[in-house]
Amino acid sequence: MPDDNKLLYYFKKWSDITDKDEPVILSSFESASVKKKKDLLVAGDTCKYIYFITKGCLRSFYIDSKGVEHIYQIRMDNNWISDLESFFTQKPSKYNIEAIEDTQMLRISFERMEQLYTEVPKLERYFRILFQKAYINALKRLNATMWETAMDRYNNMLKEHPDMFQRVPLAYIASYLGITPESLSRIRKRR
Amino acid sequence: MPDDNKLLYYFKKWSDITDKDEPVILSSFESASVKKKKDLLVAGDTCKYIYFITKGCLRSFYIDSKGVEHIYQIRMDNNWISDLESFFTQKPSKYNIEAIEDTQMLRISFERMEQLYTEVPKLERYFRILFQKAYINALKRLNATMWETAMDRYNNMLKEHPDMFQRVPLAYIASYLGITPESLSRIRKRR
Repeated sequence: MPDDNKLLYYFKKWSDITDKDEPVILSSFESASVKKKKDLLVAGDTCKYIYFITKGCLRSFYIDSKGVEHIYQIRMDNNWISDLESFFTQKPSKYNIEAIEDTQMLRISFERMEQLYTEVPKLERYFRILFQKAYINALKRLNATMWETAMDRYNNMLKEHPDMFQRVPLAYIASYLGITPESLSRIRKRR
Repeated sequence: MPDDNKLLYYFKKWSDITDKDEPVILSSFESASVKKKKDLLVAGDTCKYIYFITKGCLRSFYIDSKGVEHIYQIRMDNNWISDLESFFTQKPSKYNIEAIEDTQMLRISFERMEQLYTEVPKLERYFRILFQKAYINALKRLNATMWETAMDRYNNMLKEHPDMFQRVPLAYIASYLGITPESLSRIRKRR
């Protein structure tokens, strides 16, 4: 499926956009790409875009005062990535976004996004449902981090995102799960 | 401010609803109340409503297999509470919601909510912004839980929600922060 059609396919799943809306939407997005291991966002910069990933894989991470990286998001094909706090406030980000694979995206700027909501109000519904689901998932992850064992979190990730284990280095998955790579190795041997 | 006006005030902050929309919105909500220490939702039941709290304070919690309570949400006046996963899927909830104070609310059922989105599509914008903010906050809490010290999380809560310390028992705040009541006492003495 061409990238433009992919984007429209997902918008149409949750909102009743019309044929007339399609060119308006598509003209608001532009193609972007980032090579493996290159940055899409560097902490301190403002996140100017939200990105719809048409093919590829990226990670968002935070570097603490000791220089340790903490991964808080890993995103692949047909998903969105951004630092939403920085994007919606247009203030500097605390996070980095880096490509794990060569990645193709469609991106939209903050100004264009606000304009698009005015031109195609039906997109509010799509993003309402998107953020609603994202919020529920974030709460589930928060609860899992606070109350579940590392083994449970690993098993859950294996069940829900088996593809990640094919495409993402185990050290990154360990960081995302909030455990050391050594603990992750032990868990994988024990299964 | 009467409860109905409060609800409209918040809707109008983020969406351009008209005078014509107001009676439609208000007729979709009904008043509800719950006494201190009484349940609004019990794990195993389906969460039928989302609630706008006009006055009061509630907590959402999970009881683990050892019978230990874990609080994941504390909500007060002019905020929403629900188990959104159960509400939007209309499947049984894993969580409990209980009143910390006598609480007044306006509630809307799942069916009425879906109908209201059709009748007043402009509300999609309000809830898009609400869930967007909630998602950003959930990610911040997730990151704080994974990477910050209990002291940092306590100081942050004191800064952002000073009112909670007036109205919520410390044992509940400790559970919300993912620490023992003893650790919270030590942190409070150390400041």
